[in-house]
Amino acid sequence: MAIVVQKFGGTSVADAEKIRRAAGRALKAHNEGHQVVVVASARGKQTDQLVADALELNPNPPKREMDMLLSTGEQQTVSLMAMALEAMGQKAISFTGQQVQMVTDAAHGKARIQNIGAERIRESLDAGHICIVAGFQGVDDEGNITTLGRGGSDTSAVALAAALGAGTCEIYTDVDGIYSTDPRKYPNAVKMEQISYDEMLELASLGAGVMHGRAIEFGKKYDVTIHVRSSMDDSTGTLITHEVPQMEGIVVSGATSQKDLAKIALIGLTNTPGNAAGVFAHLAGSNVSVNDIIQTEVNSEKATLSFTVARSDLDAAKQAIEDIRKQIDCESVFIREDIAEVSVVGVGMRSHCGVAENMFKALSTNKVNIDSITTSEIRISCLVDLADADRALIAVCDAFELDKPATQRAQP
Amino acid sequence: MAIVVQKFGGTSVADAEKIRRAAGRALKAHNEGHQVVVVASARGKQTDQLVADALELNPNPPKREMDMLLSTGEQQTVSLMAMALEAMGQKAISFTGQQVQMVTDAAHGKARIQNIGAERIRESLDAGHICIVAGFQGVDDEGNITTLGRGGSDTSAVALAAALGAGTCEIYTDVDGIYSTDPRKYPNAVKMEQISYDEMLELASLGAGVMHGRAIEFGKKYDVTIHVRSSMDDSTGTLITHEVPQMEGIVVSGATSQKDLAKIALIGLTNTPGNAAGVFAHLAGSNVSVNDIIQTEVNSEKATLSFTVARSDLDAAKQAIEDIRKQIDCESVFIREDIAEVSVVGVGMRSHCGVAENMFKALSTNKVNIDSITTSEIRISCLVDLADADRALIAVCDAFELDKPATQRAQP
Repeated sequence: MAIVVQKFGGTSVADAEKIRRAAGRALKAHNEGHQVVVVASARGKQTDQLVADALELNPNPPKREMDMLLSTGEQQTVSLMAMALEAMGQKAISFTGQQVQMVTDAAHGKARIQNIGAERIRESLDAGHICIVAGFQGVDDEGNITTLGRGGSDTSAVALAAALGAGTCEIYTDVDGIYSTDPRKYPNAVKMEQISYDEMLELASLGAGVMHGRAIEFGKKYDVTIHVRSSMDDSTGTLITHEVPQMEGIVVSGATSQKDLAKIALIGLTNTPGNAAGVFAHLAGSNVSVNDIIQTEVNSEKATLSFTVARSDLDAAKQAIEDIRKQIDCESVFIREDIAEVSVVGVGMRSHCGVAENMFKALSTNKVNIDSITTSEIRISCLVDLADADRALIAVCDAFELDKPATQRAQP
Repeated sequence: MAIVVQKFGGTSVADAEKIRRAAGRALKAHNEGHQVVVVASARGKQTDQLVADALELNPNPPKREMDMLLSTGEQQTVSLMAMALEAMGQKAISFTGQQVQMVTDAAHGKARIQNIGAERIRESLDAGHICIVAGFQGVDDEGNITTLGRGGSDTSAVALAAALGAGTCEIYTDVDGIYSTDPRKYPNAVKMEQISYDEMLELASLGAGVMHGRAIEFGKKYDVTIHVRSSMDDSTGTLITHEVPQMEGIVVSGATSQKDLAKIALIGLTNTPGNAAGVFAHLAGSNVSVNDIIQTEVNSEKATLSFTVARSDLDAAKQAIEDIRKQIDCESVFIREDIAEVSVVGVGMRSHCGVAENMFKALSTNKVNIDSITTSEIRISCLVDLADADRALIAVCDAFELDKPATQRAQP
């Protein structure tokens, strides 16, 4: 009997009817002969409500107490789903993160899973139960409740699948899979049949919000295929898997645009060892996350160091730069807020030439000016004017035929 | 530094403002030099809402899952109260029942505390924290979450006070103490300054809902004075303590009336060993709780066996009696639903004569007919017509001067 792990997000368990439907799906897999583990999130807007309750009492609530509070949302869902299954005549048992020994570090609010002692789940599965495990939460070495951060239930589910040796983790959501780009921005976007972990990690880091990076990393590390699919029907969604040979033929799998960025450039920075490190250490110390660093030499002594940050972090970043300017030698600081980033991702880039050329041509044909360019092995990103962002994404999607199934696209 | 345990019920933590007020009270005790442990219930109607959510999915939810669900209410309150204290600049930490090792048996929904490993609380107190512990909940040997049943947070608080060696447990509530009788039924009822554990146990068993019997038993067993007081002001409430000599002078401390009863009489029951035991074993097997058993011999072979049950249990009791009648020899079964019980309680009865006489005289003067009488060492109860119940209680309260402070009452 194979173990199947099914994860249901907040919208898929928002009310009694949806909890019943999710329970029915778990029961179906059980009746097909599988041992079923369900991972569930908090119902609908419960977490938002709890956050509001907390902020009413403390504008800056201690993270340990926040985890204690928020973890109740998932605990409620799992007990309710166990009740729903029992009402269907199926033995079911719910567990908190603590009860399945989902051990994490003590970084409240963004804890990382260190170990899962899944014995209790195995015992219950062998006794014929469907097991329902609270997602998003764990427990540290001292028994404090922790949470895994945004999208943490996905990570719980994939990590449990890994610990239980389940080959696949099904992520049920309100969309039917992962699209080549955001269909709200490019209505002809197509659903991908499969995508590699590495591509999905790039897309996740570019703000394509379907799945959390940590969950994808777990899948990659522990060989768990992640199946993102709709909770509303039985159609196949998108499989996130190891790279397989046919993926090489797909030059660009997906495209994204990000509009919530700002660019900071330190101009005329004296190019001595440790200067750049000092800047980024100081930004990290201010909890500013930095993307897309570019350093260009102006001459043998001076360089320009530029990078992007989330626009919500811009004030903190400005302050951090202001502080560090006393220690580094830098002629001026240039900040641009009206900026966006358009990116294409695909493992086929490794073996195909002309992808960058194709992208730049599509942008220039559409009169989109490129501010700067960064690349990874499987990604090309261009900073463009914020006003051009939507047009730029459409141009790039058209150029790489992201409105067609991957196998029908022309090769560059 | 003395340890103080403060318990706040659901109405005392119903919203942010009330949580802040409760937190302020804990902080005051802390600032007076005490080590403070707070035990809190679920906010306002949260538990009712969770029960409704459960019943929507399963009309007969498994008790283990119900405990898993309901325990979240208290967990939310304690984390919120810790946040409120931190916002006041006070170090605070919240704990679940599991985290303080409130170990119970596995009787979900009515678990009994077996052991409390309070080390984690002591450490946190010594580190200068106010500790906020979720009431009502515990954990069994296998790590399942349990709940202690109605009024369980009182029991949590008194048990914690016992485990921590705190001499007093303060129970904050929306009334300012315990009254000689229910002021809604007898407006001149007076607040008691103190009452013995045994009297309070009798009153609790008679439906005076101020405190749960288990909490009082813990207080008695482990020498914890229970101080029932108002969460709205600083006035002294009622102390529940061991019997002290001056209590002997108080013949009747309190009176109660119960209207939710039914009386069952098995008439002409063959008086052979085991017959009565069989009846009550069968009732217990049907989860019917029996009060006030009276057996009277009709002749050397036959007896009448009568008892009361909660009216909500009457259908189950009737069915159980119907079943057992096949095995016992009984001429007829008589059931009375229009019945009520009026009781007086007081440790002074042990050393004073004439209490029963005084009670019966008060009832007869007021034309209340007595159906039957039961007594314990410190209690006299009369079954009366339901229609006479209110009048009977007032007559008895007047007779024993329950409108006067205990020390000013005339002796019989």
